[in-house]
Parts: sequence; C-alpha cells; structure tokens
Amino acid sequence: MQIAIVVFDRFTALDAVGPYETLGRLPGSETVFVAERRGPVRTDTGNLAVTADRTLAEVPHPDIVVVAGGPGQTPQMENEVLLDWLRTADATSTWTTSVCTGSLLLAGAGLLRGRRATSHWLAVGHLESFGAVPTAERVVTDGKYVTAAGVSAGIDMGLTLLGRIAGDEHAQGVQLAVEYDPQPPYDSGSPRKAPAHLVERFRSRSRFALS
Amino acid sequence: MQIAIVVFDRFTALDAVGPYETLGRLPGSETVFVAERRGPVRTDTGNLAVTADRTLAEVPHPDIVVVAGGPGQTPQMENEVLLDWLRTADATSTWTTSVCTGSLLLAGAGLLRGRRATSHWLAVGHLESFGAVPTAERVVTDGKYVTAAGVSAGIDMGLTLLGRIAGDEHAQGVQLAVEYDPQPPYDSGSPRKAPAHLVERFRSRSRFALS
Repeated sequence: MQIAIVVFDRFTALDAVGPYETLGRLPGSETVFVAERRGPVRTDTGNLAVTADRTLAEVPHPDIVVVAGGPGQTPQMENEVLLDWLRTADATSTWTTSVCTGSLLLAGAGLLRGRRATSHWLAVGHLESFGAVPTAERVVTDGKYVTAAGVSAGIDMGLTLLGRIAGDEHAQGVQLAVEYDPQPPYDSGSPRKAPAHLVERFRSRSRFALS
Repeated sequence: MQIAIVVFDRFTALDAVGPYETLGRLPGSETVFVAERRGPVRTDTGNLAVTADRTLAEVPHPDIVVVAGGPGQTPQMENEVLLDWLRTADATSTWTTSVCTGSLLLAGAGLLRGRRATSHWLAVGHLESFGAVPTAERVVTDGKYVTAAGVSAGIDMGLTLLGRIAGDEHAQGVQLAVEYDPQPPYDSGSPRKAPAHLVERFRSRSRFALS
C-alpha cells in the first residue's frame, strides 16, 4: 500500500508526523511525503522544514491519502492544483483521511458532502458550510473517510486505521513501540476540559471564530 | 531562550517533533533543528527527512538542549563530535533533555552520572552502565536534566517543561491548541499494559535485549 502524506507551506508538523509514526508502520507499505513541489516545506512556526520527496503529480493514486492541517490550510482552499489532486486521488483511494484542518481541504474539494467529519476544535463548525456533518469526536470514520481532530489526534487516528487494516495486534505492537501511554501533566486538551477563559481566548483570536 | 533539537541519521521523527510542537511554543524562544551537518536528515524509516537548519558548531550554547533518539543512536555513541558538543552545550544550558534513546547519548557523554533518568522501555536498563539511575517513569526530572520515555513521551515532557518555564496556564493553552486529549484505541503503550507476548517479542528482537 502506498500512503501519501500531503503537506504544504505552514502546515503543522505533528499533524503529519502522528500518522507517519503510526499508520506509516503498516507492513508492506510505502509512505511518501508529497507537496505541490519537491523539497523542503516549512511548518507553521517557521522553525522546521520537512522534505517533500515527491510532487503531487508523481503520486496520483495512493491507496491512503493523509492530509495535514495548520495555518497554511487557508490559502490552500484556493489552490486548484491541490484540490484537483485530492479529487483524483480520492477517486481510487482505499482510505481518504485528514488531521486537524486538513478536513477543510477534503471538504473544500467536495469530498465530505453528507459525511460525518471532524477537525480542530476551533474549525470543526466550518465543515458544515461544505455540506459535511461536523462531529466533535477525536477520530471520525464515515465510509472510507477518516478525519481526526486537532494536531495530536493524528496519532489516535493512525493507530485506529492501522488496527482496521493490519489488525489489532499489529496496532498494539506499534503503540508499544512508540510507547504511546499518554500522561499529560494537565487535563486541558479539549474545549470541554480546558479552563473556560483559555477556550474563550482562543475563540476570540481564531480565524475560525464563529460569529 | 534558544532551544536546540539535536537530530542525526535514522532518528525517530516523533521524538523530535513532540517537544518541538509543545516546548517549542515557549514565548520568546527560538527553536532550531541542529545536526552535525546542515541539510536533510533522514529518519529511521527512510520515508521522511527533516532539515537541520544549523550545524552543531553554529549553536554552541543553547539554553535548552533536546536530544532525540531512535535506531540511529547506536552509531552516535562513537561520534566524538556529537558527544563533545553535548558536554560543551550542557556546561552552559539551563535544561538538558532527551526523548527515547537520546538519554543514552546524554549518558554516553557522561552527563547523567548519579542522575535518575529514563529512556525507551527497551533501553532504560542500559542507562545503568553509564552510572545513571534507570527510572521507568514517563518523564523524569533530576536537577536540570529532563528525560522522557519512548517516542511519544516527548509530548508529555515538552508540556511538563513548558509549564515549569512559562507557567501552567501557558502550557495548558498549548495543550488545548494542539488538542492533546489522548484517546488511544488500545491500552498497549507500555510493557506493563501491553499483551505479554508482544512485550516478549520486542524484547527478544531488540538490540537492547538484556541477557
């Protein structure tokens, strides 16, 4: 199986690296980082670049599509090269997936109409304007479409899909290998759990603020 | 504050990206990926390269040192350029940290003698041969030395250290921003929780197998 992880200028690194480090350990698979152009692609902080080893055009029919999100997603909503590629790749993919605001790109390409889907908690409501059904869960599967919530949720999505494809035992082995036994020092990882004033501060500053 | 994330050929991507995505959001900080040479550095799977923007020599005195681990750690134990750099950087650092088998590099540089430290669960016992005190916890702090267990534990370490430096509220905000509300589909992330036969299979195949 070929797994294409789609990145673009100012994507969020962990969006891509979470699925890479889990789903990418699918036996017999090839994972490839793809972007419109080959070469280094800078993340949202500007402090990290990952290499796109192949262009979108060079990887037209991956078995699994993984689309990252991040602040750079907004300008990509107008990028017809990317949106066309997503439609073409989706036509033959076995699974079409996203992390964080990557789901807005899938939705913008018209792929999530009538589908339950999630996104970063600040952005999930915007899926509705593309005909998707916003679903505030960490990993949402609807047919072959698997979307994950913000940033770190791609790890959970990667393990979930890995289990679906390669079996529970293989996925459990990968979880053990990457020692994914989370022990966050705070319980502040979702708007339902974080201090309310922090949630409001993010909402008031977000480009996704719903008026 | 300058945060130097040290990578090398065949490091594990998430080891580096976990702290980058959390600790790297320290206000007023500069995060830089460093390696012996500038340019793309391939991870353990061969399917991903991240760019080292600066050489070790160009970043002699970071405030925070973060050393990744991964299969490529073993040959680095003989790399005097890296070990010397670690000793020099540690002499002036505020915090010296590692993820996964990165702690073996700190230990190999002589920096963890008499210190409690952790590592990937398959490797943690080997810290003893360098005079450290192996401690099977997810994040271990001893003085200015903060070590994390395998791969994904760098996220928890990053948030922990971020809270220490920037305060709990800032760290909680970063946890919310990266939506770190883990919901793994299995409970198999540590040798104490995973199916025993999987643990044994890893132990029997590991280069770190303790005889």
